[in-house]
Amino acid sequence: MELLKERILRDGKVKEGGILKVDSFLNHRMDISLLQEIGKEFRRLFPQKEINKILTIEASGIGIAAITAQYFGNADVVFAKKTKSKNLDGELYSVPVESYTRGTRFEVEVSKKFLDEKDCILIIDDFLAHGQALKGLMEIVRQSGAALAGCGIVIEKGFQDGGRILREQGVNLQSLAIIDSIEGGKITFRN
Amino acid sequence: MELLKERILRDGKVKEGGILKVDSFLNHRMDISLLQEIGKEFRRLFPQKEINKILTIEASGIGIAAITAQYFGNADVVFAKKTKSKNLDGELYSVPVESYTRGTRFEVEVSKKFLDEKDCILIIDDFLAHGQALKGLMEIVRQSGAALAGCGIVIEKGFQDGGRILREQGVNLQSLAIIDSIEGGKITFRN
Repeated sequence: MELLKERILRDGKVKEGGILKVDSFLNHRMDISLLQEIGKEFRRLFPQKEINKILTIEASGIGIAAITAQYFGNADVVFAKKTKSKNLDGELYSVPVESYTRGTRFEVEVSKKFLDEKDCILIIDDFLAHGQALKGLMEIVRQSGAALAGCGIVIEKGFQDGGRILREQGVNLQSLAIIDSIEGGKITFRN
Repeated sequence: MELLKERILRDGKVKEGGILKVDSFLNHRMDISLLQEIGKEFRRLFPQKEINKILTIEASGIGIAAITAQYFGNADVVFAKKTKSKNLDGELYSVPVESYTRGTRFEVEVSKKFLDEKDCILIIDDFLAHGQALKGLMEIVRQSGAALAGCGIVIEKGFQDGGRILREQGVNLQSLAIIDSIEGGKITFRN
């Protein structure tokens, strides 16, 4: 998505340790016009009429998913919660996730009331690096018995291995911008 | 807002300890069509042309703010982050907040890059009870030097004192539904 790549080049900030900050337009301040274009692009990439719910994870996925849902006939958005406590409650789908970036462990949780085998789910998130959060969301979809239409990611760090592994497993993973390298502060996109 | 009140009566769940759960349409699963109506109502209540940014707080405010921003000429949305660590970094506005509901303390933080004295801010959040989070957001607006156009709340618990105190202080606070009582599981709205 050219508009997004241009924006990343213009306003993204490369920090030490392979960190790309896009907080000026995506995950702290949100540019709503850009999110609308992102939503339209996800609709183009996931034209399946069956999609009735968008699943994302707090916090930065929520705004993207809410705007995107409007291009999916106002599909419901369900956002998974991150919690430190292990779920002992049968009313939740719950999956442990390890964050490589932050060195933390948390549980990803979704109420069983909001996903079931009649649903066809599109998963949306802002970033994909090692793919731990995304795998957690996919596991929740699996537990629920719902169909998974695919995973839509705004920015994929192609120099980390989450995307490659998921594509090898046959996941319908579509990323709007894939970054192959940010060495020396220079951002290089995959074509 | 009648549509919202009807939805609260139909799908809200009253739990022990004055807790109202609206997770089936507002803050876990999000009904996007309802959020669009909420956004239009906020525009009606806050017609000021100067509003150029919407400030909210993670996580459940984000979707409401993103959809609402579309009725404010795609105003930027900035969402404050909740963190356990005290901010020692001069690049952030930071305010300590105590949550009555959860008995926790956290810092509410916004990057200084995204709010300044040229801005006119509308604060949006899903719930108002004791008003601690809202006061934290207002303090951040004050620190930034921006103008505060007002505060828009989806559901106010009128039986707790946050709303009363803020109105007595002259804050332009508009709540789409004010609940005066949930005793015995029965929800009573203020007229």
